[in-house]
Amino acid sequence: MTTWDVYNKNCPTRLVLDRIADKWTVLTVGALAKETKRFSQLQRELDGISQKMLTQTLRGLERDGVIQRQVYPTVPPKVEYSLTPLGRTLITLLENITHWSENNIERVIEAQQAYDEQSSGK
Amino acid sequence: MTTWDVYNKNCPTRLVLDRIADKWTVLTVGALAKETKRFSQLQRELDGISQKMLTQTLRGLERDGVIQRQVYPTVPPKVEYSLTPLGRTLITLLENITHWSENNIERVIEAQQAYDEQSSGK
Repeated sequence: MTTWDVYNKNCPTRLVLDRIADKWTVLTVGALAKETKRFSQLQRELDGISQKMLTQTLRGLERDGVIQRQVYPTVPPKVEYSLTPLGRTLITLLENITHWSENNIERVIEAQQAYDEQSSGK
Repeated sequence: MTTWDVYNKNCPTRLVLDRIADKWTVLTVGALAKETKRFSQLQRELDGISQKMLTQTLRGLERDGVIQRQVYPTVPPKVEYSLTPLGRTLITLLENITHWSENNIERVIEAQQAYDEQSSGK
């Protein structure tokens, strides 16, 4: 295949889109944008994420080459996560998404209230 | 609350992030960027989406004020979906995500192969 197309369900780009266009990916990349972090730090920072979901998110991003997992042979072993050069190309892209959410939340809440009032027939 | 923070699980912006940072949202906004479309057109274009998931995605985006649903009183009624002005502010943001997926897929596939080889102990 010479042309990639996320609109084609069999195109491998669709799987990448699925990983990148994901709430936990956006928050993980944002949390690692400034510095390397340990699992427990990420878990604290990504308020509400389960241990299983964090493990799964980190493993997926590591497999995709977006983050790097570094194990130090201390006792107990220290494990740190950081963005790879490929992962760093995502920072601004994904920060724009969190900024959009924060900047437009009032408009969204207003729209939701209007929708709910109309749906309930008021 | 005067400061919104997507990292706080109780902040309403987290729900918006969850809707926006979603594969089907990215593809829906992209599909509506150029023109108004009917449900059946969207279903064809968003290859692989189920009718239920499309209904759910469109309803969520309508409630958030991102898309507009217009019903024409024809027989049978014609229903069209388009982006609202708020939704249009998402176009470039989300197009960047699909472009990233398409532009970096080779690097991602390479990383996946390296990861899988290492995991299988080759």
